[in-house]
Amino acid sequence: MAVIEIEKPKTYNYVFSSYLKPVARVKPGDTVIMNTEDACEGRIQTAADLPKKALSSVAFLNPQTGPIYVEGAEPGDTIAIKIVKIEPTTNQAFSAFAEFFGGLSSGPFTRTLQEPLKEKVWIWKLKDGKDGKYYINDEIRVKVPFEPFVGTLATAPKLEAISSLTPGPFGGNQDVPDVRPGNTVYLPVFNPGALVFTGDCHAHQGQGELCGFALEIPARVTLTFDLIKKKAIAWPRILSPDKIMTIASARPMEDAARIANVELCLWMEEEFGFTRWEAYELLTQVGGLYVGNMVDTFYSLVASIEKKYLVRE
Amino acid sequence: MAVIEIEKPKTYNYVFSSYLKPVARVKPGDTVIMNTEDACEGRIQTAADLPKKALSSVAFLNPQTGPIYVEGAEPGDTIAIKIVKIEPTTNQAFSAFAEFFGGLSSGPFTRTLQEPLKEKVWIWKLKDGKDGKYYINDEIRVKVPFEPFVGTLATAPKLEAISSLTPGPFGGNQDVPDVRPGNTVYLPVFNPGALVFTGDCHAHQGQGELCGFALEIPARVTLTFDLIKKKAIAWPRILSPDKIMTIASARPMEDAARIANVELCLWMEEEFGFTRWEAYELLTQVGGLYVGNMVDTFYSLVASIEKKYLVRE
Amino acid sequence: MAVIEIEKPKTYNYVFSSYLKPVARVKPGDTVIMNTEDACEGRIQTAADLPKKALSSVAFLNPQTGPIYVEGAEPGDTIAIKIVKIEPTTNQAFSAFAEFFGGLSSGPFTRTLQEPLKEKVWIWKLKDGKDGKYYINDEIRVKVPFEPFVGTLATAPKLEAISSLTPGPFGGNQDVPDVRPGNTVYLPVFNPGALVFTGDCHAHQGQGELCGFALEIPARVTLTFDLIKKKAIAWPRILSPDKIMTIASARPMEDAARIANVELCLWMEEEFGFTRWEAYELLTQVGGLYVGNMVDTFYSLVASIEKKYLVRE
Amino acid sequence: MAVIEIEKPKTYNYVFSSYLKPVARVKPGDTVIMNTEDACEGRIQTAADLPKKALSSVAFLNPQTGPIYVEGAEPGDTIAIKIVKIEPTTNQAFSAFAEFFGGLSSGPFTRTLQEPLKEKVWIWKLKDGKDGKYYINDEIRVKVPFEPFVGTLATAPKLEAISSLTPGPFGGNQDVPDVRPGNTVYLPVFNPGALVFTGDCHAHQGQGELCGFALEIPARVTLTFDLIKKKAIAWPRILSPDKIMTIASARPMEDAARIANVELCLWMEEEFGFTRWEAYELLTQVGGLYVGNMVDTFYSLVASIEKKYLVRE
Repeated sequence: MAVIEIEKPKTYNYVFSSYLKPVARVKPGDTVIMNTEDACEGRIQTAADLPKKALSSVAFLNPQTGPIYVEGAEPGDTIAIKIVKIEPTTNQAFSAFAEFFGGLSSGPFTRTLQEPLKEKVWIWKLKDGKDGKYYINDEIRVKVPFEPFVGTLATAPKLEAISSLTPGPFGGNQDVPDVRPGNTVYLPVFNPGALVFTGDCHAHQGQGELCGFALEIPARVTLTFDLIKKKAIAWPRILSPDKIMTIASARPMEDAARIANVELCLWMEEEFGFTRWEAYELLTQVGGLYVGNMVDTFYSLVASIEKKYLVRE
Repeated sequence: MAVIEIEKPKTYNYVFSSYLKPVARVKPGDTVIMNTEDACEGRIQTAADLPKKALSSVAFLNPQTGPIYVEGAEPGDTIAIKIVKIEPTTNQAFSAFAEFFGGLSSGPFTRTLQEPLKEKVWIWKLKDGKDGKYYINDEIRVKVPFEPFVGTLATAPKLEAISSLTPGPFGGNQDVPDVRPGNTVYLPVFNPGALVFTGDCHAHQGQGELCGFALEIPARVTLTFDLIKKKAIAWPRILSPDKIMTIASARPMEDAARIANVELCLWMEEEFGFTRWEAYELLTQVGGLYVGNMVDTFYSLVASIEKKYLVRE
Repeated sequence: MAVIEIEKPKTYNYVFSSYLKPVARVKPGDTVIMNTEDACEGRIQTAADLPKKALSSVAFLNPQTGPIYVEGAEPGDTIAIKIVKIEPTTNQAFSAFAEFFGGLSSGPFTRTLQEPLKEKVWIWKLKDGKDGKYYINDEIRVKVPFEPFVGTLATAPKLEAISSLTPGPFGGNQDVPDVRPGNTVYLPVFNPGALVFTGDCHAHQGQGELCGFALEIPARVTLTFDLIKKKAIAWPRILSPDKIMTIASARPMEDAARIANVELCLWMEEEFGFTRWEAYELLTQVGGLYVGNMVDTFYSLVASIEKKYLVRE
Repeated sequence: MAVIEIEKPKTYNYVFSSYLKPVARVKPGDTVIMNTEDACEGRIQTAADLPKKALSSVAFLNPQTGPIYVEGAEPGDTIAIKIVKIEPTTNQAFSAFAEFFGGLSSGPFTRTLQEPLKEKVWIWKLKDGKDGKYYINDEIRVKVPFEPFVGTLATAPKLEAISSLTPGPFGGNQDVPDVRPGNTVYLPVFNPGALVFTGDCHAHQGQGELCGFALEIPARVTLTFDLIKKKAIAWPRILSPDKIMTIASARPMEDAARIANVELCLWMEEEFGFTRWEAYELLTQVGGLYVGNMVDTFYSLVASIEKKYLVRE
């Protein structure tokens, strides 16, 4: 099993797309270290780098590293990506309020005639504490532990090229905190080689990613790829040490909640010996359902069940 | 401080309403034990009691015990209700699939021309296990621990009389698992005496209450009432040993997510020394956001922050 | 057949409710002239009467005249209300931008942290033109023809008392321009006597009632009541000289669109000799679907089909 | 000014994409006749061609003719496309109920666990009547006049390649009946040459396109292209002889309603001498707002104002 390190691209892709040339070819079982840029391409470094100005010269956001071609992956397969490690490559993270963006603002989809919220950049410094690394902002002065995850992880969709700001059946910009070290993410394969993209690491994020910018960091992401042949899934799935989870991204939010739960019922039927009706009933009593993201082009919700509830007496 | 026990009503109210005569008058500080019926008035006892038939003679669902008049409560105050204890009064719980009801079915609001899902009743038996009480169903054979909460807890709205199936600013049928023993729920007071209703206890429920019937039980609910004078809140709040939480109920679901988070920002501003902008930023990084209920007339979402993040360095 | 005139109430009801005493009893076939107040109780008369101040002393909006008890009406019947005539009782109408209200603003349901839009009152003067009466505002200087309708028309719901700002199965604050002279509105009867309320006349309104205040007028409304015994409908229906229409009010808006169209399919099945599948197909090809209101507590949509398409070759 | 005829492609594109090679280059002022396939590529010809089977061999739907490269068009310009004529190339149209598709069914976005509606194909025959051409189906036996429009008309988006089933800022699969002969559609230009696609003609369609298949026809579409240099628009606009209209496509439906109305306010501000506040007020009183489509990946709504209301006294 090889270990391959991918450098940050010199120019960026802002789409999940099969029209792009792979930056590397790997085999199932290989470990890939992907160097990723932050969601604003490093243009926000100080509290003075207000988004409108700092981003005026970039046409697109959320630069992606990839695509990685996984040998043997074909449409109808599923790719399993184990998140091994996420290492920040700088000693700070930024968050920001951008105009007409964020869960508590009107925006391009939920439009109003109101003025935008005031722009603001929040710089969070990385520190070593007795309980481990944490981030802290000078004004807020609350310690936020370093618990990183990958905001964006995708395979290329079929025929389409989709903005890297968008989540969907192919994964994408899901901003779901459970895409984190120790967990394995399953994504559908739509094209030969799967064509995997990643980026947008977060040092920490609350459920919902409320203002739209978590603790945004450039990072060195270690992933292990595996392939499940001839097994198709419809939406992303996550396996953690203690839970199985499905992610769905849609609008309105209840559509995402419905999809995630239908997919979880079907998964329990396929692999865990429950009928879909038993699954529907059991999830009613013990399922989890949280909002990963309420700011992106589609909202991402995560349905889950603890593994202990998958064991019958 | 008195302890007052309220028996189950002989006839039921199915509205949160100031047009109803109080069943008891209590003082702030008093403890009230409220005997509550299950959401289907005890009509579903066996797997043969399919909802359409079993409920054919009842015009309304979710019978409520109350209202309780709390001395001294006036519009503009807030009532604090500590959930002390919930004791099931039978040795089983039911759940059910009812036609055109539930999160994974079309229904009266999300209408389609499709056939309904097949009705089914699930009886869950209460057992004692080595780790405590649990419920188990013969078909599903998965142990669900006894972790009860109050599905419905309300004050009477102003002028309106609202169906007891509905959640809103007055609380109501929120079906939020954090309305549980050990936690204190804050509700706005809209009428003299507050006029508190409760019912619809659940022995356990997943986030979302997927099929619309949790582990439904009749119960003996012990509550302690307190009053915060001249402090108005807009939506229900919960204080737990380790978190502060807000509940909002709306459609589409993103509207509930927005309201709950705005209310939590405002609470952090009012009482915890953060500006609303610091709160917006901090919740982005460490807030919680789960779906309490995705089946009722409005969806209930819970936004939260752990108390440890309310302490500044 | 009697003609009964109801004066404006001295104090107002702000709920559709069976807890209120009828102001008159009429018989099917009777004509009732109802004097109605405008939605802000006459408090906005000049451009200086900005809503926040002008309405500071009123706890509720949308005052209603009624309820009218219709002899013989019983739950399960349908009441037919022919809109005969709407006469403005003043020579102006107002519209206004109120804070956190309106289709292009955040509000109590779609909450954000943004500042409100600036308040403004628009006074529209009633004039006689060569093509009939019209309204004109000094700043905008566009003639809007006098084409009045009834914004709010309701029966009392069962058990509930619902804010007069809300539309629903009982009709209510639908703000649908087709509730206009020449048309007949059908509403479900939930209580003995039906208990009919009306108010909130508009001299003209666009589809959507965008800012939330149409050309608001006090008016003298002439209605003829009729009763269809033992026929229950689920949502309001309208019969015009050339169309049949259904109204549904829900959130999100697609839920209202679905309900209105399902109800129209069922109506075509019940009374016009189509199967529901033929109706579904035919509405796809020739149905109408407009937004009556996008600002109220629920959005009201109108589905329709021209009568000429109800005739088979 | 040239007239250029484009034949139906031999193989189809199912994306609006700048990655495709133009099929023709035209100049502003040119007239282009585009031969288009129906939405199911001609695979549904009889009532026996049920969608699941008939479409089993096609991976994608809604085949497009194009892209057309318009000389001189650059990002930031607007392209004006006059719909001159739509001629059906066969003597029938089809509509169909497909599984898990349509406004009154659950589907891939609004998921439930219910069974699908039964598949059915409706063949509508083209006839000559004394009032002109019409379509009629043997079972339904209602005459539907020939009033054709273009269901899909798009420019290529920037970087993205978007499924031809999707509407958006670039136009696309809007299914809006006002994209019809006599009207001019304005679309934003995101790429050099604009890259225009069209297809999916409908012989007639109700508002909402309820079941998802209007009277689907292959057609010969005559368009005239014009270019407005250095004028950018955000969403599609339509100019008809008597109205100006904006189209927006989003979920939930109220988001589309908001966007369409904000865009119409801004258009009235840019070109018709109103402030945006006057526009907001005037649209409240006289605006139109109908649902073009409630089945596609996003819902398309049309906001409008009659030109007569754009003239000040």
